Amino acid sequence: MPSRYRSFRCSLPWLLLLLQTLLLIHSFLRLRAAGDIYSPPSFYPEFQDVNHMVIFGFGFFLVVLRRYGFSSTGFNFLLMVLGVQCSLLVEDFLVFLGVQQSEAGMKRLAKAVVSMAAVLISTGAVLGKANPVQLIVMSLVELIVFYVSRCINRTFLQVPEHLTLLHVHLFGAYFGLAVSSCFPEPPPGLDKHRSSPKSDLFSVLGTVFVWVFWPSFNSILADSKKEAVLNTYLALAVSAVAAFMLSALTSKDGKFRMTHIHSAVLAGGVTISYTAHSIQHPWIAMILGLLGSGITILGSHCLQRCFNPALKVQDTSGVHFTFGLPAVLGAVAAVVLCLVGKGMDQQWNDLSSLGYLIFVDVGAFCQTISTALITGLITGLILNIKLLKAVHVSKYFDDQFYWEVSFKMISD
Amino acid sequence: MPSRYRSFRCSLPWLLLLLQTLLLIHSFLRLRAAGDIYSPPSFYPEFQDVNHMVIFGFGFFLVVLRRYGFSSTGFNFLLMVLGVQCSLLVEDFLVFLGVQQSEAGMKRLAKAVVSMAAVLISTGAVLGKANPVQLIVMSLVELIVFYVSRCINRTFLQVPEHLTLLHVHLFGAYFGLAVSSCFPEPPPGLDKHRSSPKSDLFSVLGTVFVWVFWPSFNSILADSKKEAVLNTYLALAVSAVAAFMLSALTSKDGKFRMTHIHSAVLAGGVTISYTAHSIQHPWIAMILGLLGSGITILGSHCLQRCFNPALKVQDTSGVHFTFGLPAVLGAVAAVVLCLVGKGMDQQWNDLSSLGYLIFVDVGAFCQTISTALITGLITGLILNIKLLKAVHVSKYFDDQFYWEVSFKMISD
Amino acid sequence: MPSRYRSFRCSLPWLLLLLQTLLLIHSFLRLRAAGDIYSPPSFYPEFQDVNHMVIFGFGFFLVVLRRYGFSSTGFNFLLMVLGVQCSLLVEDFLVFLGVQQSEAGMKRLAKAVVSMAAVLISTGAVLGKANPVQLIVMSLVELIVFYVSRCINRTFLQVPEHLTLLHVHLFGAYFGLAVSSCFPEPPPGLDKHRSSPKSDLFSVLGTVFVWVFWPSFNSILADSKKEAVLNTYLALAVSAVAAFMLSALTSKDGKFRMTHIHSAVLAGGVTISYTAHSIQHPWIAMILGLLGSGITILGSHCLQRCFNPALKVQDTSGVHFTFGLPAVLGAVAAVVLCLVGKGMDQQWNDLSSLGYLIFVDVGAFCQTISTALITGLITGLILNIKLLKAVHVSKYFDDQFYWEVSFKMISD
Repeated sequence: MPSRYRSFRCSLPWLLLLLQTLLLIHSFLRLRAAGDIYSPPSFYPEFQDVNHMVIFGFGFFLVVLRRYGFSSTGFNFLLMVLGVQCSLLVEDFLVFLGVQQSEAGMKRLAKAVVSMAAVLISTGAVLGKANPVQLIVMSLVELIVFYVSRCINRTFLQVPEHLTLLHVHLFGAYFGLAVSSCFPEPPPGLDKHRSSPKSDLFSVLGTVFVWVFWPSFNSILADSKKEAVLNTYLALAVSAVAAFMLSALTSKDGKFRMTHIHSAVLAGGVTISYTAHSIQHPWIAMILGLLGSGITILGSHCLQRCFNPALKVQDTSGVHFTFGLPAVLGAVAAVVLCLVGKGMDQQWNDLSSLGYLIFVDVGAFCQTISTALITGLITGLILNIKLLKAVHVSKYFDDQFYWEVSFKMISD
Repeated sequence: MPSRYRSFRCSLPWLLLLLQTLLLIHSFLRLRAAGDIYSPPSFYPEFQDVNHMVIFGFGFFLVVLRRYGFSSTGFNFLLMVLGVQCSLLVEDFLVFLGVQQSEAGMKRLAKAVVSMAAVLISTGAVLGKANPVQLIVMSLVELIVFYVSRCINRTFLQVPEHLTLLHVHLFGAYFGLAVSSCFPEPPPGLDKHRSSPKSDLFSVLGTVFVWVFWPSFNSILADSKKEAVLNTYLALAVSAVAAFMLSALTSKDGKFRMTHIHSAVLAGGVTISYTAHSIQHPWIAMILGLLGSGITILGSHCLQRCFNPALKVQDTSGVHFTFGLPAVLGAVAAVVLCLVGKGMDQQWNDLSSLGYLIFVDVGAFCQTISTALITGLITGLILNIKLLKAVHVSKYFDDQFYWEVSFKMISD
Repeated sequence: MPSRYRSFRCSLPWLLLLLQTLLLIHSFLRLRAAGDIYSPPSFYPEFQDVNHMVIFGFGFFLVVLRRYGFSSTGFNFLLMVLGVQCSLLVEDFLVFLGVQQSEAGMKRLAKAVVSMAAVLISTGAVLGKANPVQLIVMSLVELIVFYVSRCINRTFLQVPEHLTLLHVHLFGAYFGLAVSSCFPEPPPGLDKHRSSPKSDLFSVLGTVFVWVFWPSFNSILADSKKEAVLNTYLALAVSAVAAFMLSALTSKDGKFRMTHIHSAVLAGGVTISYTAHSIQHPWIAMILGLLGSGITILGSHCLQRCFNPALKVQDTSGVHFTFGLPAVLGAVAAVVLCLVGKGMDQQWNDLSSLGYLIFVDVGAFCQTISTALITGLITGLILNIKLLKAVHVSKYFDDQFYWEVSFKMISD
């Protein structure tokens, strides 16, 4: 066992040092072009909201395992600060290759933070099973692939720039699931894979934060911010009501289940993310929120009983039904709404252009999800090679393996 | 016991479904008029502050009982998201009846969130005693009655629109008290009606949040925002200092009592709410903060010893002295300040117009408080009919009755 | 023991009453000049960020001791609300003496809140050892001395107003250390001087808050806000990465130590505070963040082993390496950057003016740190006189001495 510890010490710090040096060199080489990073378009308050939501909200949202609080918040924080810098580097590289336009100031940083949400969602799927080295490698690969996938959507399918970024939930969830399917399952007797009431209360804290700031997340890059904010708020409100309704309806004895509430209150925000800026009537947003919540809670029952055991997927914090299914629903809804909207405008005359619209939207969706699944699977296989020192299954879900936990164990 | 559970499952989800369907239909019927919900007047940052304060702050402010953390935050959240939508419906109905002018965009939503504070305050009075079905019925009745009471103030007493909304603390506290007096008392041996240090720490977290965002709450609808913000900040600061002073002075051994601090740091914000926008000198705001804190701590001693046992009121989280008494003081202060201000302007010549001013202010106050008490009492009686399945007193203050609490009990 | 309690009751409330009365009288006497407190320059959102960070963030940042949660957050709150008011009084007095220009509106309040950060940092050094009376006396003395020190810098060394305020970390840390060296050491067997996983999780919560709002703190008074925000964000990000890297590298078994993460993620923000507004290239900010984090973690090892035992300093929450050392590094960096910048502009011709620049910067630094150390030592000696009823060492780090802790002890 001590040898395992020593080897962990020999890998992580040097990996971090290497990455950080690379980022510093990149930042230094940007020297001459550096003026533009401070140039006008600044929207600090919105950026602050999204930053707060992603770092604080997601960090505590993931504190669901009773012995994994430090790692949930700590590693989320580490991946975030590292990922934002890497994201800037990847974007500069793409600008250098000529496939992307350069952007300035806070907007660049804001887009980096939004992209990082994909990584943090994937982290949720392997929560407690991947060690920090694996997490860092995973987030680097995921970031690059996500940028490439967005480039394809933008270049070949002419999806507008800010819409490509909204595939963040879809990509994150399915990439995470594919990675998680490569990790060995924990032994059935292990009881650390549970939440405690105290850890759940911290998780509620994070969830409420994410919920409150979601309208900022959906509107930060939208052109019509007001619509995006209001539609997202209404969708979130309806999905929260539906979460309580469906949780009481589907669980034993009509009691609420906290994991349902965690997942389903956010479902509305995910579902509406593609369409928040373009919906013209509040009731459409509300219906989408309702459907999102429904698919999440039904999904949480079906997936955990049928799908996950069959495919040997172990989805620790339930990202499949929290982010994956509502994102699929949202993509479908976007196609339908776009179709109906354009169709009614043209009085269903120009069917070929409608067909092209569907082709583009469905193409972007399929390209994103298949890229996520395939690269996720490959990443998962890479992560489980000897070199990266996979954690032994008996050490899953435990802070003690990564942190000098003081004095005695986290009390249940 | 199982029959009780089953019947709970048969009521709550369907009630939520019914309400949400109604809200969806309403939103659909607003179709043609819907454009205005997205129309200009938007003030997203202030709205975000108030929304954050009400959902996150109040939610954790109420985590005072050691076994009731899930329900405190969860039900607060449910009532909030449901209530905001209902509030929009009630307002549309009043606009339809012609007694209120239509408003647009975020402002409408912001007013709905502010109105919901009344419901959340009332919830505090019956915390741990009312089941979710009762809470939902209570909040619907309270919302409607609060709108009607505001309409009366506006129509018959010519109180300006944004001032009617500031009776929110007064109305919420006395409505909640009246409702709470209809619930049976818990048996004396029950020790769940206590806080634990951990639950208190979560409650401090919520309290600090509410404190920090209170200036936004008081200023969101005011015309002279700057004055409202500064006066509220000063009143809050003084009331916080006074809270520590009076807590050490009145408690045994000169120690601080956490419940005093919880209640009294907020008293300044409640006291100043009617007058924050109109006070011209900071020292008046500071004195109001001091008096508010004083009345809260004295009230907490007197009420719990004399008033509550005599009237059989069981005020779980102390809304009477946290929100009720400071609101009464604030209303009195508003009358006095208005009188002195106008009187000095006119050099005390036109006494009849001064008399009319007093009549209007006192009238609005008396109408609000009596409406709250009477309708609260009726609501309390309705809530305790068999149909709504009141919780048995032995099940009070316990998450286990409503939530699938995992594995073992919340550790004390 | 009861006599000790009674005497505590006889001192604190009256001290608070005296101070609050003084503040009220001051506010009343400002009557005629009062119009200006509400006058234009208002920047509410930035003020809100900083206020939130200082009250909420610092409050929970200090919840590191397992039995001292109430006192950490409660006393932080008390000192803050009292100190902001005192700060306004001290500033008015300095304006009256003619050594400072009067300022208006929110800006005055914002500067008061920023000044208070010095007091809150000092509090961290004596956390758990000083009683509330001592803390209040300390914060009053510190506030006044900090204002005087800033006046000297401004008047004699021509340091610009907003830069004098950025010595807040340096002053706070060394004042606190000097005070803390006068307190007797706790007996070696006392195990309350530890954190528990639960208290650490609350502390992480506070740390993340402080981290997220730090760009607002550094930019609130700067002229070039955009640069200050971006540079601070980058420095913070790099220092967070470096924190994880160095923690794994220096601790036993390559595990992370939570105290390292707490301290070092913030080091970047402290280091960059003097220069955030003037740095022209992001890579400089990133290097400063890296160095800040490095000095913090190396400092935490060296200081606790060599420096603290030798000088009998007992630095409870590690303010020396969290705020002190990075602030020293930041001051050195400011001199170097200013020198290189000016030198390159003038092509190293006018060496005497460069020498003068160095003299001013080094002078301001030395004046601040020596004032902090000397007055801190004197304050520490004053605080330990009989009159102020120093806490007995066996009662250190315990909420029970100050709060009516309900029912049973804070569970570990």
